[in-house]
Amino acid sequence: MEEYQKIRIDVLKGFVVDVFKKLGMSEEDAEITADVLIASDRRGISSHGVARLGRYVKGIKNGVMKPKAEMRIEKETANTLLVSGEDGLGQPVSYKTMKLVIEKAKKNNVAFAAVHNSNHFGIAGYYSMMALKEDLIGISTTNSAPLVLPIFGKTMMIGTNPISIAAPAGQERPFVADMATSTVPRGKLEVYARKEKKIPLVWATDETGKPTDDPDKVLKNLLERAGGGLLPLGGSEEETGGHKGYGFGMIVEILTGVLSGGAFGPFVYGKKGEPANVCHFFGAINIDAFIPKDMFKENMDKLIRTIKASEKTEGKTRIYIHGEKEFEQEDIHQEVVDIYYKVVETMQDIGKEIGIEPPF
Amino acid sequence: MEEYQKIRIDVLKGFVVDVFKKLGMSEEDAEITADVLIASDRRGISSHGVARLGRYVKGIKNGVMKPKAEMRIEKETANTLLVSGEDGLGQPVSYKTMKLVIEKAKKNNVAFAAVHNSNHFGIAGYYSMMALKEDLIGISTTNSAPLVLPIFGKTMMIGTNPISIAAPAGQERPFVADMATSTVPRGKLEVYARKEKKIPLVWATDETGKPTDDPDKVLKNLLERAGGGLLPLGGSEEETGGHKGYGFGMIVEILTGVLSGGAFGPFVYGKKGEPANVCHFFGAINIDAFIPKDMFKENMDKLIRTIKASEKTEGKTRIYIHGEKEFEQEDIHQEVVDIYYKVVETMQDIGKEIGIEPPF
Repeated sequence: MEEYQKIRIDVLKGFVVDVFKKLGMSEEDAEITADVLIASDRRGISSHGVARLGRYVKGIKNGVMKPKAEMRIEKETANTLLVSGEDGLGQPVSYKTMKLVIEKAKKNNVAFAAVHNSNHFGIAGYYSMMALKEDLIGISTTNSAPLVLPIFGKTMMIGTNPISIAAPAGQERPFVADMATSTVPRGKLEVYARKEKKIPLVWATDETGKPTDDPDKVLKNLLERAGGGLLPLGGSEEETGGHKGYGFGMIVEILTGVLSGGAFGPFVYGKKGEPANVCHFFGAINIDAFIPKDMFKENMDKLIRTIKASEKTEGKTRIYIHGEKEFEQEDIHQEVVDIYYKVVETMQDIGKEIGIEPPF
Repeated sequence: MEEYQKIRIDVLKGFVVDVFKKLGMSEEDAEITADVLIASDRRGISSHGVARLGRYVKGIKNGVMKPKAEMRIEKETANTLLVSGEDGLGQPVSYKTMKLVIEKAKKNNVAFAAVHNSNHFGIAGYYSMMALKEDLIGISTTNSAPLVLPIFGKTMMIGTNPISIAAPAGQERPFVADMATSTVPRGKLEVYARKEKKIPLVWATDETGKPTDDPDKVLKNLLERAGGGLLPLGGSEEETGGHKGYGFGMIVEILTGVLSGGAFGPFVYGKKGEPANVCHFFGAINIDAFIPKDMFKENMDKLIRTIKASEKTEGKTRIYIHGEKEFEQEDIHQEVVDIYYKVVETMQDIGKEIGIEPPF
């Protein structure tokens, strides 16, 4: 049996848009959300692609995600925005807010927006990369369900809180970092559990708070909130830099939840059956306010080429720049994406349930 | 023999100011530089305190740091600055630039500055914390000598590139993250070498690019640039998150060296005997542009208290918030700092050399 099914992007997108419309979303919002999900599959980040469709459908059906929500600008200046997502899906409010941030940065050099009362927004890199089309530096971050430990603690307090920064280059591909501030996201443990592999000791702790190599135990504890959880980048101790990953996670909580007046830390997804109040933070920097953008791009090329051409460690043949692997995946998946068979099955179930025939 | 000597802060500062003035710095610049150095000793970060005085004196004497340099604003908008440090010491240009950034953020919500042709600026946290007095969020980062590896590479390409973000709280102490983006800075290896301790395998690689536990070998290789170097936060492999620390290091190179039109990556300290062209990036965000600052502070208190009160792992009695340890050190060192005896000796040597009697 083939593990992955090849599906045409236009066909897949049509189906996903139809699902969201059937659930009450506007054409525009359904298009945006489908595009963010499929961009993730195209970039090889299948954990954040259409594999998430089931969770969104469930969220809408449970009433904790509001498909008809229209974002509300609560406060606005020449270069800042405070936005409420009104408990709608994360993608439409994030896309529209980042558009506004980009316009403001083009006019006024730098701009930031904080968003509250939103939901999971897909890949952070989608929004930071929107700035690249305008030759700006893009910034995107979000808080998320509290699955990560402060070091020396055994109760999960912080989200996996990805940070994404995108910067244009000239001849080279842009730099696009998009990184959870935990060592790994939960999905990585699921992959190791499926393959019956042990996990490195910097990924997670058991219910007593000790680092463990058993992914099944951790996944069970996460679900039951039995103690322990995911470790911040750098692991459980200061000696290995765990306080730094924890620090980056905190910075995200501050810029998203605290600065927007929304939920932060353990209060995100705080009450079962109620909206999650996920919060985001977006930014854009106009390079021309500092140096001519052509000079910036030339220097980016120089930085990228110098690093890529530098000597490799034994056994390694290539040094990567952030985003490079994903751009290569995107090139391969221009018309067709590979979807894991279980994800295809779930989409077929969703289609049946809500009365839309999936065309695959 | 006592390993540490207690020195009154006013006495120590007087000496450091006199040294810098004798070497040609203005009273104002000497005061700023001395204050940044001694703030570091007060906060318990002795690696960046007066222990560095010798290097600055050497830099000035060699002509690669220019004591009389006056910073030059090359480009300015309502919320951005491009600044040349004119190869002066890093502290005066950083202090004065951050002052301007704060003024701009107070008037125009957010502001950023990129600085090129500067030098080592001391602790990044000094400048981000300047924003706290005005109840702003402060951002400070710098590139530095290339001592860190891209993962899969064995030539040092990136600085230890600290990132500092400071945010005010209400009753609680402010949040102040100040973190090198390598797992550890070089100084940590020197401490382990002195104590003849092995280093964790996520700190550095040997000349073949393999992780090593031998600090002496690494320090020798760093000096000779013989191959290998410090590892980014997360270590040598993607499995442990090494690409993330490497990503944060790259973000710093982009915002400092690339965006300012200065030196970046391996080109910082690129030519022996010439100015280092270290580059910085400063920012400030006016909280009131988003939510009332009192609400922000209340929520910061709530976040901090919730995390600190959460359950500890076995064997740990306390969860720290970033900056907390340093504020406690600062409280202890209100009038007197503890200086390592070798640092005292070096200062006495400096005094003799340039004709100033150290009063300790």
